[in-house]
Amino acid sequence: MSAEKLSDTEIRKALNSLQGWELQEGEIRKLYKFKDFKEALSFVNRVAELAEEADHHPDILIRYNKVTLTLSTHSAGGLTVKDFQLAQKIDG
Amino acid sequence: MSAEKLSDTEIRKALNSLQGWELQEGEIRKLYKFKDFKEALSFVNRVAELAEEADHHPDILIRYNKVTLTLSTHSAGGLTVKDFQLAQKIDG
Repeated sequence: MSAEKLSDTEIRKALNSLQGWELQEGEIRKLYKFKDFKEALSFVNRVAELAEEADHHPDILIRYNKVTLTLSTHSAGGLTVKDFQLAQKIDG
Repeated sequence: MSAEKLSDTEIRKALNSLQGWELQEGEIRKLYKFKDFKEALSFVNRVAELAEEADHHPDILIRYNKVTLTLSTHSAGGLTVKDFQLAQKIDG
């Protein structure tokens, strides 16, 4: 699987196919809100399974009922297809 | 259970009884390192159980094998005994 850094045009196109993800400092980020901490944690555990399957791991910030996921490909020094594939799986 | 804001002296004393926790911008914070993402996530799930028991929830940041916990009592506008009690339970 390719892990080449995407161009700005490719990033913009890929972002358009997602909902709620924002480009910020070369990473993509999405905030999810849940009823409470318990539901937020269930979501994090589902994300964790997908991350392990993909061998690609978002940064995960949990603040009570809010979860922020941040994706980039450190080894490529930017965003790659792996980030958008995982984002799509998480929201799928 | 009291949720009164602690004084600077009380905070300093309480911090001394903990290991690895740092005071930063009116919150206490600790970074934990694990073998991999899976172990980091197991830790987060244990912390989550303690947080639910205490009805007090740290901010939790997971970056692959690193977990940062941040504690403060929003309702009190600072640090309270609840923060130090939970920190102690997490490390206990």
